[in-house]
Amino acid sequence: MRQQSGDASLLRRLNTAAILRHLRGAESATFAELAKAARVSRPTAEAVVEELLAEGWAEECGEDSAERQRGRPAKRFRFRASAGHVVGVSIGAYRLFAMVADLGGRVVATHRMAVYPEMPADERMAAIVGLVEQAATDLGDADALAGRGAGRFAAVGVGTTGVVDARGRVVKSIALPGWTGLELQAELSRMIPAPVLVENDMRLAVLAEHWRGVAVGRRDVVYLFTGNRMSLGLLIDGVPYRGSHGASGELGEQPGGLWKVWSHVVDYAMSVEPGELRSPGQAAEFAFTRALEGDPRAVKTVEAFATGLAEGLVTVVNPLDPEMVVIGGALSRGGELLTGPIQAYLNRVCLYPPEVVASRLGVESIVVGALKLALNNADKLLFS
Amino acid sequence: MRQQSGDASLLRRLNTAAILRHLRGAESATFAELAKAARVSRPTAEAVVEELLAEGWAEECGEDSAERQRGRPAKRFRFRASAGHVVGVSIGAYRLFAMVADLGGRVVATHRMAVYPEMPADERMAAIVGLVEQAATDLGDADALAGRGAGRFAAVGVGTTGVVDARGRVVKSIALPGWTGLELQAELSRMIPAPVLVENDMRLAVLAEHWRGVAVGRRDVVYLFTGNRMSLGLLIDGVPYRGSHGASGELGEQPGGLWKVWSHVVDYAMSVEPGELRSPGQAAEFAFTRALEGDPRAVKTVEAFATGLAEGLVTVVNPLDPEMVVIGGALSRGGELLTGPIQAYLNRVCLYPPEVVASRLGVESIVVGALKLALNNADKLLFS
Repeated sequence: MRQQSGDASLLRRLNTAAILRHLRGAESATFAELAKAARVSRPTAEAVVEELLAEGWAEECGEDSAERQRGRPAKRFRFRASAGHVVGVSIGAYRLFAMVADLGGRVVATHRMAVYPEMPADERMAAIVGLVEQAATDLGDADALAGRGAGRFAAVGVGTTGVVDARGRVVKSIALPGWTGLELQAELSRMIPAPVLVENDMRLAVLAEHWRGVAVGRRDVVYLFTGNRMSLGLLIDGVPYRGSHGASGELGEQPGGLWKVWSHVVDYAMSVEPGELRSPGQAAEFAFTRALEGDPRAVKTVEAFATGLAEGLVTVVNPLDPEMVVIGGALSRGGELLTGPIQAYLNRVCLYPPEVVASRLGVESIVVGALKLALNNADKLLFS
Repeated sequence: MRQQSGDASLLRRLNTAAILRHLRGAESATFAELAKAARVSRPTAEAVVEELLAEGWAEECGEDSAERQRGRPAKRFRFRASAGHVVGVSIGAYRLFAMVADLGGRVVATHRMAVYPEMPADERMAAIVGLVEQAATDLGDADALAGRGAGRFAAVGVGTTGVVDARGRVVKSIALPGWTGLELQAELSRMIPAPVLVENDMRLAVLAEHWRGVAVGRRDVVYLFTGNRMSLGLLIDGVPYRGSHGASGELGEQPGGLWKVWSHVVDYAMSVEPGELRSPGQAAEFAFTRALEGDPRAVKTVEAFATGLAEGLVTVVNPLDPEMVVIGGALSRGGELLTGPIQAYLNRVCLYPPEVVASRLGVESIVVGALKLALNNADKLLFS
């Protein structure tokens, strides 16, 4: 008896999963379409849909007059994306950033929290947990799964700087104090009552560009994150590439003058406004602004800066033969000022010059990628 | 009737394929083991094995006294690797090289043919066809599939320099006249009565190192082919990586002095023996020999040369995070003279220094990779 009822309940769960998966993939569906897609009888499909309606996973969305049931138009149902939510978090030295979306990937809220570079690791983790809890509270009590605090999230994706291994441990990070060796995924999982996934920020950035950025539909992409530090994210055959220690994309120490491009913009900014202290990234933005205003020295400076980036890029672009190079991070705001000279350089030296495109997600690419990481995980948990 | 007999013959073919696949994967097997593995009745297994014995695909290989049939020890059978052969070919400017193996991958013959750099493309192709026919003839008439000329090969794998697309067309080659734009796979398929596959030589070299070279069991490998030209082969997640145009591994034009390492050894050789004309590769070998003999200037020269290679390698090793770097091609003979300084350099600048190993296949890596390409294809044709 027990064996039999176990089998029956397993079968019911498989049928439910099959119907839910089909609803999720389709715009909408009728009982008949769901029965066919899940290879179940119509009464079974009806029973499963009733259950999904009651639990808030599905909703009615009109009628289909082409398909009729006892002379009446057939009801249509769809997946209720707001049945669940996920949150993506990016961890910076100065800022935490959270983005909340429903299971359909629609962003419903963003949250920011200021932190500081010297913040101890345990305080930074507590701040992350606080931000996720805040995001859960702000989501309101509107949906059926509410009232469980941070546990209401189907998954939490977290992007961090540093080398991250497959278990979400920060193997090495020079940017944040106490971060090296931190079991970040395990620690956050202990503090947040939802599945937590931690991944390296560059891999999330390129994932985001592939999901809803400039690299949608591309398979092989070199993504350059620009800011006060630079690193790469590599998309290989449509998937962010980890490398054998999770350290892919790190530029590290490079020979000669490769990737040492900051002096162009820093020297320029200092010469124009000697009294003003600027970070390298701020100096670059200053040069962009002046170049757009028509200062010929600024134009030359930005060109030299971009050519320096192109020289670094070609050492990776030639061996990897990507179809696209994405300039991401803070300096993506430079737009055509950067992509123009980089494209011209690659056109000159590459057998197959990839298209050079500025990210439109900018620094948000990391949190968007963290959101996608959470969504992928929620999909896996809910529909398989 | 026709429908039914079609189904029966399909079923028989599926059973045959299943049993053949199991025989190929196992050391040996009895009727009972084969019946179980292929999920068929014992009489069916017996009938299929009789057919495979008659056709030369299987052979008896002793008895199993642990398993008995009517009181007698059960017969054991194994796949007859010599039932079929494949050939791998590498195309050089000065030399064609063919390697013949049975379906078990055992090399049974090698063939070389001298050609010349200026050889027109149609003559070079005719020479390839001639070499493959010669290889077929030399294989003798010993096996059941003989007497069909080059058609006796289950597959022919061909490695060529240049950018090769997925259909085996040489999109670009600067090394061989008339090679750019050549439909090499289609042309050779027209002239050789066997399935022909054409692939870029660097991808075959790294495939060979992964199959039976120094990179067995590795997943992420950067392979450097050294010789009068240098290029890379990239193994990513255990598979040679193509890039978006089949141009991965090309170093192309690189900024600064990167990869411009020849002057070290060429200048050295010229200074020691001013009258002797040597190619860059020959100059390197000359320096290796003198270094091994203890000439301190030669030792310094080889160190500088190796460090130059390491500087080029680090631009790829840091972003890709491979577990191993293989030094292949003609200069792999330098062995520890090269790998020592390269390893020391990577240890100094890499977060995760990969192991640096000299290939033992040397220049043969390409033809061995071509053989593996042919074997993989034969497997696909015969067993699926």
